[in-house]
Amino acid sequence: MHDEYNVFMLQAIEMAKKAYQLGEIPVGALIVRNGEIISQAYNSRETDKNALAHAEIKAIDEACKKLGGWRLIGCDLYVTLEPCPMCTGAIINSRIERVIYGADNPKFGSCGSVVNLTDFPYNHKPEIIAGVMADECSYLLKLFGKSLRSRNEDLSK
Amino acid sequence: MHDEYNVFMLQAIEMAKKAYQLGEIPVGALIVRNGEIISQAYNSRETDKNALAHAEIKAIDEACKKLGGWRLIGCDLYVTLEPCPMCTGAIINSRIERVIYGADNPKFGSCGSVVNLTDFPYNHKPEIIAGVMADECSYLLKLFGKSLRSRNEDLSK
Repeated sequence: MHDEYNVFMLQAIEMAKKAYQLGEIPVGALIVRNGEIISQAYNSRETDKNALAHAEIKAIDEACKKLGGWRLIGCDLYVTLEPCPMCTGAIINSRIERVIYGADNPKFGSCGSVVNLTDFPYNHKPEIIAGVMADECSYLLKLFGKSLRSRNEDLSK
Repeated sequence: MHDEYNVFMLQAIEMAKKAYQLGEIPVGALIVRNGEIISQAYNSRETDKNALAHAEIKAIDEACKKLGGWRLIGCDLYVTLEPCPMCTGAIINSRIERVIYGADNPKFGSCGSVVNLTDFPYNHKPEIIAGVMADECSYLLKLFGKSLRSRNEDLSK
Protein backbone atom coordinates (compact mmCIF):
# COMPACT_ATOMS: atom_id res chain seq x y z
CA MET A 1 0.00 0.00 0.00
CA HIS A 2 2.83 2.36 0.89
CA ASP A 3 4.34 1.86 -2.57
CA GLU A 4 1.08 3.05 -4.10
CA TYR A 5 1.21 6.20 -1.95
CA ASN A 6 4.73 6.89 -3.19
CA VAL A 7 3.86 6.43 -6.88
CA PHE A 8 1.07 8.98 -6.69
CA MET A 9 2.99 11.37 -4.42
CA LEU A 10 5.84 11.38 -6.93
CA GLN A 11 3.36 12.50 -9.58
CA ALA A 12 2.05 15.22 -7.20
CA ILE A 13 5.68 16.38 -6.84
CA GLU A 14 5.90 16.56 -10.65
CA MET A 15 2.90 18.93 -10.53
CA ALA A 16 4.57 20.98 -7.77
CA LYS A 17 7.59 21.38 -10.08
CA LYS A 18 5.35 23.05 -12.66
CA ALA A 19 4.31 25.61 -10.01
CA TYR A 20 7.98 26.15 -9.09
CA GLN A 21 8.90 26.83 -12.70
CA LEU A 22 6.26 29.60 -12.78
CA GLY A 23 7.62 31.19 -9.58
CA GLU A 24 4.62 29.96 -7.59
CA ILE A 25 4.72 28.33 -4.13
CA PRO A 26 5.43 24.76 -5.30
CA VAL A 27 2.42 22.64 -4.36
CA GLY A 28 0.93 19.87 -6.50
CA ALA A 29 -2.17 17.71 -6.05
CA LEU A 30 -3.95 14.79 -7.67
CA ILE A 31 -7.25 13.03 -7.24
CA VAL A 32 -7.17 9.26 -7.59
CA ARG A 33 -10.02 6.76 -7.74
CA ASN A 34 -9.53 2.99 -8.04
CA GLY A 35 -5.86 3.49 -8.85
CA GLU A 36 -6.61 5.91 -11.71
CA ILE A 37 -5.62 9.60 -11.75
CA ILE A 38 -8.85 11.57 -12.26
CA SER A 39 -7.33 15.06 -12.12
CA GLN A 40 -4.05 16.79 -11.35
CA ALA A 41 -3.16 20.43 -10.72
CA TYR A 42 -0.64 22.84 -9.23
CA ASN A 43 -0.81 26.09 -7.33
CA SER A 44 -1.12 29.10 -9.64
CA ARG A 45 -2.38 31.86 -7.35
CA GLU A 46 0.00 34.53 -8.65
CA THR A 47 -0.26 33.59 -12.33
CA ASP A 48 -4.06 33.37 -12.21
CA LYS A 49 -4.34 36.36 -9.83
CA ASN A 50 -6.93 34.34 -7.93
CA ALA A 51 -7.10 33.40 -4.23
CA LEU A 52 -8.87 30.15 -5.13
CA ALA A 53 -6.15 28.80 -7.43
CA HIS A 54 -4.63 26.34 -4.93
CA ALA A 55 -3.63 22.93 -6.31
CA GLU A 56 -6.33 21.08 -4.32
CA ILE A 57 -9.19 23.41 -5.37
CA LYS A 58 -8.20 23.14 -9.04
CA ALA A 59 -7.96 19.32 -8.77
CA ILE A 60 -11.39 19.10 -7.05
CA ASP A 61 -12.93 21.41 -9.68
CA GLU A 62 -11.60 19.26 -12.52
CA ALA A 63 -12.63 16.00 -10.82
CA CYS A 64 -16.24 17.26 -10.32
CA LYS A 65 -16.36 18.19 -14.02
CA LYS A 66 -14.88 14.84 -15.13
CA LEU A 67 -17.01 12.67 -12.85
CA GLY A 68 -20.16 14.76 -13.40
CA GLY A 69 -21.14 15.27 -9.75
CA TRP A 70 -20.15 17.19 -6.63
CA ARG A 71 -19.67 14.08 -4.47
CA LEU A 72 -16.22 12.62 -5.10
CA ILE A 73 -17.13 9.28 -3.53
CA GLY A 74 -14.27 6.78 -3.38
CA CYS A 75 -11.69 9.43 -4.29
CA ASP A 76 -8.35 10.08 -2.59
CA LEU A 77 -6.55 13.42 -2.75
CA TYR A 78 -2.75 13.45 -2.83
CA VAL A 79 -1.06 16.76 -2.10
CA THR A 80 2.55 17.69 -1.43
CA LEU A 81 1.71 20.18 1.37
CA GLU A 82 -0.84 19.94 4.21
CA PRO A 83 -4.05 21.66 3.01
CA CYS A 84 -5.08 25.15 4.22
CA PRO A 85 -8.56 25.77 5.76
CA MET A 86 -10.14 26.57 2.36
CA CYS A 87 -8.85 23.36 0.79
CA THR A 88 -9.64 21.20 3.85
CA GLY A 89 -13.19 22.61 3.74
CA ALA A 90 -13.44 21.80 0.02
CA ILE A 91 -12.23 18.25 0.78
CA ILE A 92 -14.98 17.86 3.42
CA ASN A 93 -17.63 19.37 1.10
CA SER A 94 -16.72 17.12 -1.82
CA ARG A 95 -16.79 13.95 0.35
CA ILE A 96 -13.23 12.96 -0.54
CA GLU A 97 -12.46 9.78 1.42
CA ARG A 98 -8.76 10.13 2.14
CA VAL A 99 -6.18 12.90 2.09
CA ILE A 100 -2.58 11.76 1.67
CA TYR A 101 -0.20 14.66 2.17
CA GLY A 102 3.56 15.16 2.30
CA ALA A 103 4.96 18.12 4.24
CA ASP A 104 3.35 19.71 7.30
CA ASN A 105 2.31 23.37 6.97
CA PRO A 106 2.83 25.00 10.40
CA LYS A 107 1.33 28.37 9.34
CA PHE A 108 -1.82 27.35 7.43
CA GLY A 109 -2.17 23.56 7.70
CA SER A 110 -5.69 22.65 8.75
CA CYS A 111 -5.42 18.86 8.88
CA GLY A 112 -3.50 18.91 12.16
CA SER A 113 -0.98 21.79 12.29
CA VAL A 114 -2.91 25.03 13.05
CA VAL A 115 -6.12 23.05 13.59
CA ASN A 116 -7.54 19.72 12.46
CA LEU A 117 -10.82 20.62 10.75
CA THR A 118 -11.67 16.93 10.28
CA ASP A 119 -12.05 16.66 14.10
CA PHE A 120 -15.13 18.93 14.09
CA PRO A 121 -18.63 17.47 13.70
CA TYR A 122 -19.21 18.29 10.03
CA ASN A 123 -21.20 15.74 8.03
CA HIS A 124 -18.13 14.09 6.49
CA LYS A 125 -14.81 13.06 8.01
CA PRO A 126 -12.03 12.26 5.54
CA GLU A 127 -9.18 10.03 6.70
CA ILE A 128 -5.85 11.89 6.92
CA ILE A 129 -2.51 10.21 6.12
CA ALA A 130 0.33 12.64 6.84
CA GLY A 131 4.05 12.67 6.06
CA VAL A 132 4.17 10.58 2.86
CA MET A 133 7.49 11.47 1.19
CA ALA A 134 7.64 14.51 3.45
CA ASP A 135 11.34 15.21 2.77
CA GLU A 136 10.91 15.06 -0.99
CA CYS A 137 7.81 17.29 -0.79
CA SER A 138 9.63 19.81 1.44
CA TYR A 139 12.66 20.00 -0.84
CA LEU A 140 11.07 22.23 -3.51
CA LEU A 141 9.35 24.36 -0.84
CA LYS A 142 12.71 25.02 0.86
CA LEU A 143 14.34 25.81 -2.49
CA PHE A 144 11.50 28.26 -3.22
CA GLY A 145 11.90 29.90 0.21
CA LYS A 146 15.65 30.31 -0.37
CA SER A 147 15.21 31.88 -3.82
CA LEU A 148 12.56 34.24 -2.41
CA ARG A 149 14.89 35.34 0.40
CA SER A 150 17.81 35.91 -1.94
CA ARG A 151 15.55 37.92 -4.30
CA ASN A 152 14.38 40.06 -1.38
CA GLU A 153 18.00 40.59 -0.27
CA ASP A 154 18.91 41.70 -3.81
CA LEU A 155 15.99 44.15 -3.80
CA SER A 156 17.04 45.60 -0.44
CA LYS A 157 20.58 46.37 -1.65
CA MET B 1 -24.06 52.08 9.03
CA HIS B 2 -26.72 49.52 9.83
CA ASP B 3 -28.86 50.84 6.96
CA GLU B 4 -25.99 50.17 4.58
CA TYR B 5 -25.76 46.59 5.86
CA ASN B 6 -29.47 46.15 5.19
CA VAL B 7 -29.32 47.54 1.64
CA PHE B 8 -26.59 45.09 0.65
CA MET B 9 -28.10 42.16 2.57
CA LEU B 10 -31.39 42.71 0.73
CA GLN B 11 -29.47 42.33 -2.54
CA ALA B 12 -27.80 39.15 -1.21
CA ILE B 13 -31.33 37.85 -0.45
CA GLU B 14 -32.27 38.62 -4.08
CA MET B 15 -29.37 36.38 -5.13
CA ALA B 16 -30.53 33.66 -2.70
CA LYS B 17 -33.96 33.76 -4.41
CA LYS B 18 -32.29 32.85 -7.71
CA ALA B 19 -30.83 29.74 -6.04
CA TYR B 20 -34.25 28.89 -4.58
CA GLN B 21 -35.87 29.11 -8.01
CA LEU B 22 -33.36 26.53 -9.28
CA GLY B 23 -34.12 24.14 -6.39
CA GLU B 24 -30.77 24.92 -4.77
CA ILE B 25 -30.17 25.63 -1.05
CA PRO B 26 -31.00 29.36 -1.14
CA VAL B 27 -27.80 31.25 -0.30
CA GLY B 28 -26.69 34.51 -1.92
CA ALA B 29 -23.51 36.55 -1.55
CA LEU B 30 -22.01 39.84 -2.70
CA ILE B 31 -18.65 41.51 -2.48
CA VAL B 32 -18.71 45.25 -1.85
CA ARG B 33 -15.88 47.79 -1.92
CA ASN B 34 -16.32 51.49 -1.17
CA GLY B 35 -20.10 51.12 -1.36
CA GLU B 36 -19.96 49.50 -4.82
CA ILE B 37 -21.02 45.92 -5.59
CA ILE B 38 -17.99 44.22 -7.19
CA SER B 39 -19.54 40.77 -7.64
CA GLN B 40 -22.66 38.81 -6.70
CA ALA B 41 -23.49 35.13 -6.85
CA TYR B 42 -25.74 32.36 -5.55
CA ASN B 43 -25.29 28.73 -4.58
CA SER B 44 -25.50 26.40 -7.59
CA ARG B 45 -23.89 23.19 -6.35
CA GLU B 46 -26.56 20.86 -7.79
CA THR B 47 -26.98 22.72 -11.09
CA ASP B 48 -23.22 22.99 -11.66
CA LYS B 49 -22.57 19.50 -10.20
CA ASN B 50 -19.61 21.04 -8.38
CA ALA B 51 -18.72 21.04 -4.67
CA LEU B 52 -17.06 24.45 -5.05
CA ALA B 53 -20.14 26.26 -6.38
CA HIS B 54 -21.10 27.99 -3.11
CA ALA B 55 -22.25 31.61 -3.37
CA GLU B 56 -19.19 32.98 -1.54
CA ILE B 57 -16.64 31.05 -3.66
CA LYS B 58 -18.30 32.21 -6.89
CA ALA B 59 -18.38 35.82 -5.64
CA ILE B 60 -14.69 35.69 -4.61
CA ASP B 61 -13.74 34.15 -7.97
CA GLU B 62 -15.54 36.91 -9.88
CA ALA B 63 -14.11 39.66 -7.64
CA CYS B 64 -10.52 38.41 -8.18
CA LYS B 65 -11.14 38.43 -11.94
CA LYS B 66 -12.72 41.92 -11.89
CA LEU B 67 -10.13 43.50 -9.60
CA GLY B 68 -7.19 41.70 -11.23
CA GLY B 69 -5.56 40.31 -8.09
CA TRP B 70 -5.96 37.65 -5.41
CA ARG B 71 -5.95 40.11 -2.48
CA LEU B 72 -9.42 41.59 -2.07
CA ILE B 73 -8.15 44.46 0.10
CA GLY B 74 -10.87 46.77 1.42
CA CYS B 75 -13.63 44.37 0.37
CA ASP B 76 -16.60 43.23 2.46
CA LEU B 77 -18.48 39.99 1.82
CA TYR B 78 -22.22 39.88 2.47
CA VAL B 79 -23.81 36.45 2.65
CA THR B 80 -27.25 35.30 3.75
CA LEU B 81 -25.95 32.22 5.63
CA GLU B 82 -22.90 31.80 7.88
CA PRO B 83 -20.01 30.52 5.71
CA CYS B 84 -18.86 26.86 5.78
CA PRO B 85 -15.17 25.97 6.43
CA MET B 86 -14.29 26.08 2.71
CA CYS B 87 -15.78 29.55 2.26
CA THR B 88 -14.36 30.90 5.56
CA GLY B 89 -10.94 29.63 4.42
CA ALA B 90 -11.37 31.35 1.04
CA ILE B 91 -12.33 34.58 2.88
CA ILE B 92 -9.13 34.37 4.95
CA ASN B 93 -7.00 33.54 1.88
CA SER B 94 -8.40 36.44 -0.17
CA ARG B 95 -7.84 38.97 2.67
CA ILE B 96 -11.49 40.05 2.75
CA GLU B 97 -11.79 42.62 5.55
CA ARG B 98 -15.30 42.02 6.86
CA VAL B 99 -17.90 39.28 6.61
CA ILE B 100 -21.48 40.39 7.19
CA TYR B 101 -23.78 37.41 7.40
CA GLY B 102 -27.46 36.79 8.12
CA ALA B 103 -28.55 33.41 9.48
CA ASP B 104 -26.41 31.15 11.67
CA ASN B 105 -25.55 27.72 10.25
CA PRO B 106 -25.45 25.27 13.20
CA LYS B 107 -24.26 22.30 11.06
CA PHE B 108 -21.50 23.84 8.91
CA GLY B 109 -21.02 27.45 10.05
CA SER B 110 -17.33 28.17 10.60
CA CYS B 111 -17.49 31.80 11.72
CA GLY B 112 -18.76 30.88 15.19
CA SER B 113 -21.27 27.99 15.07
CA VAL B 114 -19.31 24.72 14.62
CA VAL B 115 -16.00 26.59 15.01
CA ASN B 116 -14.74 30.12 14.49
CA LEU B 117 -11.87 29.76 12.02
CA THR B 118 -11.04 33.46 12.34
CA ASP B 119 -9.93 32.79 15.95
CA PHE B 120 -6.97 30.66 14.78
CA PRO B 121 -3.56 32.25 14.11
CA TYR B 122 -3.72 32.40 10.32
CA ASN B 123 -2.09 35.42 8.68
CA HIS B 124 -5.36 37.32 8.22
CA LYS B 125 -8.29 37.84 10.54
CA PRO B 126 -11.49 39.18 8.94
CA GLU B 127 -14.00 40.97 11.15
CA ILE B 128 -17.28 39.03 11.51
CA ILE B 129 -20.66 40.77 11.81
CA ALA B 130 -23.39 38.18 12.42
CA GLY B 131 -27.17 38.25 12.41
CA VAL B 132 -27.85 41.07 9.90
CA MET B 133 -31.47 40.56 8.73
CA ALA B 134 -31.24 37.04 10.16
CA ASP B 135 -35.02 36.43 10.05
CA GLU B 136 -35.31 37.53 6.43
CA CYS B 137 -32.28 35.39 5.46
CA SER B 138 -33.71 32.37 7.30
CA TYR B 139 -37.13 32.66 5.67
CA LEU B 140 -36.12 31.23 2.27
CA LEU B 141 -33.99 28.54 3.94
CA LYS B 142 -36.95 27.38 6.02
CA LEU B 143 -39.21 27.42 2.96
CA PHE B 144 -36.63 25.31 1.12
CA GLY B 145 -36.42 22.86 4.05
CA LYS B 146 -40.21 22.51 4.08
CA SER B 147 -40.46 21.87 0.33
CA LEU B 148 -37.66 19.28 0.60
CA ARG B 149 -39.45 17.47 3.42
CA SER B 150 -42.77 17.44 1.60
CA ARG B 151 -41.05 16.14 -1.57
CA ASN B 152 -39.39 13.36 0.44
CA GLU B 153 -42.74 12.48 2.02
CA ASP B 154 -44.33 12.27 -1.45
CA LEU B 155 -41.51 9.98 -2.59
CA SER B 156 -41.93 7.69 0.41
CA LYS B 157 -45.65 7.13 -0.26
